[in-house]
Amino acid sequence: MSRSGLKLYESSVSPNSRRVRIFLAEKGICVTRVPVNLGAKEQFSKAYARINPRRVVPTLVLDDGTVIGEVPAILRYFEEAYPNTPLLGTSSKDKALVTMWERRMELEGFAAVMETVRNKIPSLKGRAIAGPHAYEQIPALVERGRQRIENFYADLEARLGEAPFVAGERFSAADISAVVTVDFATKALELAIPDPNKATHCWYDAVAARASFAA
Amino acid sequence: MSRSGLKLYESSVSPNSRRVRIFLAEKGICVTRVPVNLGAKEQFSKAYARINPRRVVPTLVLDDGTVIGEVPAILRYFEEAYPNTPLLGTSSKDKALVTMWERRMELEGFAAVMETVRNKIPSLKGRAIAGPHAYEQIPALVERGRQRIENFYADLEARLGEAPFVAGERFSAADISAVVTVDFATKALELAIPDPNKATHCWYDAVAARASFAA
Repeated sequence: MSRSGLKLYESSVSPNSRRVRIFLAEKGICVTRVPVNLGAKEQFSKAYARINPRRVVPTLVLDDGTVIGEVPAILRYFEEAYPNTPLLGTSSKDKALVTMWERRMELEGFAAVMETVRNKIPSLKGRAIAGPHAYEQIPALVERGRQRIENFYADLEARLGEAPFVAGERFSAADISAVVTVDFATKALELAIPDPNKATHCWYDAVAARASFAA
Repeated sequence: MSRSGLKLYESSVSPNSRRVRIFLAEKGICVTRVPVNLGAKEQFSKAYARINPRRVVPTLVLDDGTVIGEVPAILRYFEEAYPNTPLLGTSSKDKALVTMWERRMELEGFAAVMETVRNKIPSLKGRAIAGPHAYEQIPALVERGRQRIENFYADLEARLGEAPFVAGERFSAADISAVVTVDFATKALELAIPDPNKATHCWYDAVAARASFAA
């Protein structure tokens, strides 16, 4: 493991934090983790707002104090600074394909689960979108979210019928976003991989067997 | 201008296509453009579905037939294959910061405008989310969209009060996403930069004066 002086503010119950943890485990990078207690709403404290005014986790703070928010930006930092075990592609073409597939997993899968949860759970009233601004819940988004997740599972099954991993022949950040989405949907909404989706089950078992999965 | 054998399927009226056109103009890359007639719903034709089953523009097709969808993936391809005039950052830190800011412009700005338009316009009934799946419009998203765009403008003004460009000292893809968002909000929703937002007006004038702006 390579050890850095970086600090990662994150939470063990945050699916976005888990995307970064799995990425770091795959690359063998060890950073100082600073827990942010979401249950106690610590992300809205004045102390945390000074670190990340967006009031979300995870946040990466570099040695020089530079603050990097947003999961794809944090992954980009680690991929560029620690190029061993590439997870965002190697050639120009592969880098573009990983970007495309990771983004689809996030926007069509992860974001759909997040939107459904945030518009559904009573404790998130007035917090339908993460960040510094308050937005009321819209109940119609819960029903639409279920449709979106159903479509996500169907599209993922089609994709994994043509390639062993989401972005093609190799494990990448796209698989990380996909597996975190599946676990999030299963745990928060009881929307697990549909039984008939054999290619997805096979892929899930392979990804869950990696040491990084427990991160 | 460097000329390639790449094909870019796009539309002159698509703001997502414009993000790519400005990026290419800034880098001096010339590609073959294939117009897709959105007015005639050509993106839903069988011929176009064979090129991009997601039925959206823009789509980049490489010499070997590889299909790259999603704007950030297309930009990533061009940045890696044509590294001159970097627009996605140079050092690890800069690359992460550009990724962060470009993403915020897109998710908090561009996506908010798109969501508002798609849930509002009668001709987009049943097409509230772009892509292969049908989703009904949700009127509550139109009102929420106006709030989101208002917050986007306030956050952009705060950011441009601390740096000359969205991602810092240099023009980057984050400025492209931001300026396309402003023009899209102004044209489609009559939500222009608020008059008192002096830093944003100053930045906009500088960006609009670049040759790439007309792309």
